[in-house]
Amino acid sequence: MSMACISLLTDFGLSDEYAGVMKAVVATINPQARVIDITHQIAPQDIVQAAFVLKAAYRYFPPGTVHLAVVDPGVGTGRQIVAARAGDYFFLGPDNGVLWPSIEATGEKDPQIVTVTNPAFFLANVGNTFHGRDIFAPVAAHLTLGVKLGQLGAPTEFSRIIRPAGCVPRRMEDGRLQGTVVGIDRFGNVITNIRRSDLAALAGGDKWDDLEVSVGHWRLKGLQETYAAVPAGDPLALIGSRDTLELAVNRGNAAETMGVGRGMPVIVSPGGSGKD
Amino acid sequence: MSMACISLLTDFGLSDEYAGVMKAVVATINPQARVIDITHQIAPQDIVQAAFVLKAAYRYFPPGTVHLAVVDPGVGTGRQIVAARAGDYFFLGPDNGVLWPSIEATGEKDPQIVTVTNPAFFLANVGNTFHGRDIFAPVAAHLTLGVKLGQLGAPTEFSRIIRPAGCVPRRMEDGRLQGTVVGIDRFGNVITNIRRSDLAALAGGDKWDDLEVSVGHWRLKGLQETYAAVPAGDPLALIGSRDTLELAVNRGNAAETMGVGRGMPVIVSPGGSGKD
Amino acid sequence: MSMACISLLTDFGLSDEYAGVMKAVVATINPQARVIDITHQIAPQDIVQAAFVLKAAYRYFPPGTVHLAVVDPGVGTGRQIVAARAGDYFFLGPDNGVLWPSIEATGEKDPQIVTVTNPAFFLANVGNTFHGRDIFAPVAAHLTLGVKLGQLGAPTEFSRIIRPAGCVPRRMEDGRLQGTVVGIDRFGNVITNIRRSDLAALAGGDKWDDLEVSVGHWRLKGLQETYAAVPAGDPLALIGSRDTLELAVNRGNAAETMGVGRGMPVIVSPGGSGKD
Repeated sequence: MSMACISLLTDFGLSDEYAGVMKAVVATINPQARVIDITHQIAPQDIVQAAFVLKAAYRYFPPGTVHLAVVDPGVGTGRQIVAARAGDYFFLGPDNGVLWPSIEATGEKDPQIVTVTNPAFFLANVGNTFHGRDIFAPVAAHLTLGVKLGQLGAPTEFSRIIRPAGCVPRRMEDGRLQGTVVGIDRFGNVITNIRRSDLAALAGGDKWDDLEVSVGHWRLKGLQETYAAVPAGDPLALIGSRDTLELAVNRGNAAETMGVGRGMPVIVSPGGSGKD
Repeated sequence: MSMACISLLTDFGLSDEYAGVMKAVVATINPQARVIDITHQIAPQDIVQAAFVLKAAYRYFPPGTVHLAVVDPGVGTGRQIVAARAGDYFFLGPDNGVLWPSIEATGEKDPQIVTVTNPAFFLANVGNTFHGRDIFAPVAAHLTLGVKLGQLGAPTEFSRIIRPAGCVPRRMEDGRLQGTVVGIDRFGNVITNIRRSDLAALAGGDKWDDLEVSVGHWRLKGLQETYAAVPAGDPLALIGSRDTLELAVNRGNAAETMGVGRGMPVIVSPGGSGKD
Repeated sequence: MSMACISLLTDFGLSDEYAGVMKAVVATINPQARVIDITHQIAPQDIVQAAFVLKAAYRYFPPGTVHLAVVDPGVGTGRQIVAARAGDYFFLGPDNGVLWPSIEATGEKDPQIVTVTNPAFFLANVGNTFHGRDIFAPVAAHLTLGVKLGQLGAPTEFSRIIRPAGCVPRRMEDGRLQGTVVGIDRFGNVITNIRRSDLAALAGGDKWDDLEVSVGHWRLKGLQETYAAVPAGDPLALIGSRDTLELAVNRGNAAETMGVGRGMPVIVSPGGSGKD
């Protein structure tokens, strides 16, 4: 039998009892389940940031892991809850876009997805404010015990799951690529939604050195291999650990130095054209 | 045999090695014990906040869990250490009020309580500054190994345990109820010590819609069922996940919007009288 | 067989997926390994602070624990990675000084040390920005599975390992001792690198009450036994839980009250001489 593992990704922070209580509920239902925190410090209600963090992390967990993401501004409203099996993993969360990029990234042609409605797998008293405790944690624990998706609720289609706005960069009419800052990490590194494959398509072969990255009033020429490829204090662009475009400052804080924040546009030009 | 589980609640934060060292001590004494953090980010030395967080969390843990709360401004002085068995749980902490509301909430008629003094269950060298490591963690670990309360020290009575000041709301002469803000959560939700049962007694039956909640210069009429019951940005009152009165702002931060902080009074009027 | 335990000490923070992904990699390689966080909130790239936190924590873990410290400003450059066995523990980290004080503190006469180069124990694709995930976590997991140091790379000598600058206090020409502030804890306590043994040598026997501690424009006479030995709000010096000199304020925040920060010099005079 595979190890019972649950990953947790929330915006609950660590100052309150919320994350701990979810783990307590899991331990009560399945004492063998191991819970690993991805993070609880997603900016409150930032579904897009959460979606990208989950996408960056999910593939490193043991096969069979239940990935539970609770960033849920619609808690207590009519928003639905979905559970999916895709690739080697289970995914569980509100149907608000937080799971979509990860399920898509597994490459699973036909992921099995259900709308979670069966109260047999919830806590006895479900309130309106903390579904992490009352619904999500117990359902995740039951999944690690071998409960089947079909027992949780009715099947649905991946195409009917909500897709987060702005999660994929777009090609502009002039040929440049426009992406978005989806997060700032602890070191001030600026994380974008522009994938290595997007850059490869733009660069057309090996002309990576011609790529020019613009954000705010900054222009960065070419991609570096390491943070230390530029002098300390200088900004650079590179493909980071999430396999997406990052802006960084060697031994510094790029977000502060460059004045960049979550949600700002990032433009990549193929370069070599003399255009601005 | 039940699972060996320890919950940890401290004001040690996560920047230092303190919480990790407590877990290391537990793992050295009982490698089978599972430790689940409730939180380590209680405001430094805020016994009342810690007491309410523990009360909100303890009942979701597996039966037999040892709840260890170390918010201990009196460390190194003559304050006593107590261990209790009440309901399905063990409680361990300094005798400063942090455990009282939880033990009381179990409803246990006659909780077994001892003053912890037996150094056989402490680390070999006990200092004056970090009893979390030297005394609390090893005693908790020994409890998960089956050590009996009576081995830890002499019996005492629940009535002799220190009760935190201001933990229960009071009925004012004019019939209104006065409670206190006992915490602000990560979302800016304002947590009070006013229980559902206090409101039921005040409302007298079903007249919940007449209740008026006052804090600072704000007045909120009636209780809502969900955060989303009011327009985004509007404040509301509801019974939160801890089964106590909370003030919130739909998709916003109530503490900031309303200018409310820990320790501020919250008044509930039965309403319908035209009195302010 | 001893328990498989890994301690984690990084500057990755808890806002991103970095620490969680390291635990996921460990769980994939050795599902039996237990991971205990020391802290992930070392100030970004502060090798000295990390070294002292590790030194304060390592000895409380179960024998056989792999202590993994990833504070690694040189990631992606030519800096080396070292693994050591000293005392009852394994140590793994970049060769930048972070491990040196702990290995030295074990008192191991002849620690076994290797330079880690064997990619058989890394993830399949090693990038340039996140060796915590790609190299350190998998190597630590393999160590808990019984892989030998000699399998990881070529032997080296303790004397060739980088020693952090300023980690040991120095005796000044006038006989006073000069140390450094190596950290500020969550309570504002000021942690120094001055050990009990340094003070004992300076005090010469039992004349601890004559010691005078200077930092900034503050002078503190004598060492106290507990925080509560002085009135609330007053500063004091004592030997803290790390067995080093600490400055504190009873029920207050010494770093704020005294205006003291990381890296500031701390001078201890034997006292009794009237010299300032």
